[in-house]
Amino acid sequence: MGQPGRLIAFEGIDGCGKSTQARALADRLGARLTFEPGATPLGASLRTLLLTPGDDAPRERAEALMMAADRAQHVATVIDPCLARGEWVVTDRYGASTLAYQGFGRGLDHNELDSLVAWATGGRWPDLTIFLDVPVEVARERRSGQAADRFEGEAGSFLERVAEGYRTLAKGSTGVDWLVLDGTLSEDEVQRLIVAGLVERWGDELQERGFDR
Amino acid sequence: MGQPGRLIAFEGIDGCGKSTQARALADRLGARLTFEPGATPLGASLRTLLLTPGDDAPRERAEALMMAADRAQHVATVIDPCLARGEWVVTDRYGASTLAYQGFGRGLDHNELDSLVAWATGGRWPDLTIFLDVPVEVARERRSGQAADRFEGEAGSFLERVAEGYRTLAKGSTGVDWLVLDGTLSEDEVQRLIVAGLVERWGDELQERGFDR
Repeated sequence: MGQPGRLIAFEGIDGCGKSTQARALADRLGARLTFEPGATPLGASLRTLLLTPGDDAPRERAEALMMAADRAQHVATVIDPCLARGEWVVTDRYGASTLAYQGFGRGLDHNELDSLVAWATGGRWPDLTIFLDVPVEVARERRSGQAADRFEGEAGSFLERVAEGYRTLAKGSTGVDWLVLDGTLSEDEVQRLIVAGLVERWGDELQERGFDR
Repeated sequence: MGQPGRLIAFEGIDGCGKSTQARALADRLGARLTFEPGATPLGASLRTLLLTPGDDAPRERAEALMMAADRAQHVATVIDPCLARGEWVVTDRYGASTLAYQGFGRGLDHNELDSLVAWATGGRWPDLTIFLDVPVEVARERRSGQAADRFEGEAGSFLERVAEGYRTLAKGSTGVDWLVLDGTLSEDEVQRLIVAGLVERWGDELQERGFDR
């Protein structure tokens, strides 16, 4: 059996550019591109319940548990099997989203959420988490005209807390590798910095895999 | 503000008679009758995903997390508000179902599930858990002709592990009040034993509430 693959997670508020960058990086790496919540059939149903404003919106803990359920299914049926086959996986959102949104955003206890994410994933952490930092107003401007989901429909202070939460996480996490980039830079410039970050970490490994800078 | 209400949970495998007994007791107490999973609108959607056999059946941890999400919503929007108003609540299944089905049935770690249930419920435990013990073959016989859900469709050994798990839980739990009854007795006899168990615990309180034995 060959080397297992690597898991790279993109994080940030909606409109930070992470979906675009994740797609571009997955193309370049020949990696599996995936996302949360909703990448599995079960997860797609959970996503609808989580993101659609409705009469019985999930309360704080139910929301965190449904996000964790989506992630558990995602890891068990998509991410772990890919990594075991030696594929690299690029995911648009992962565990840090729970800490940022349900922790800093909703106010749930950080350590308790950390344990929840660890349990849901069986301890599968990303090899690298890339946080694209943009001011909330820039993200909002970029997404103007698109329908707001239940999270984007929250009061402005909610997304401010989430964005600030990501900044705190990226500074304070021990044992987790964060690459923080200015998401207001051009798409090409952000991609160039991402590739540089990967080469710095795994240059030889990428060369062996025929990775084209 | 008056005295808060009490939470009574019925537990056991399907076909043990708990739904019938829960309904009869709730009627007698003038209590709120509820159940898991699926008592809230959100929970009803989760219940469908959990119980319906499908192509993307929840993996072990996803299943436990969805049960916990259902329970979190149930506690936050139904159980806690009722108890706070002084109402008594009778629920057909609660946290012990997770320990029995996802723990003893699926093989997930008992202490980890215990923490999960505690977090989902904000530490809301039943004042009394009534376990109706019946052999698996008796339960199966009683339910013959009814459609099997995803749990009842499991191999026979699964329900045996769940039933035995309940027996272990009822014997071994510290700080949790269990009333274990022989579910093969007649409906009237089981109800009589339940009422006797309640009067033994809360005779004065029940009398104050005008409870008719």
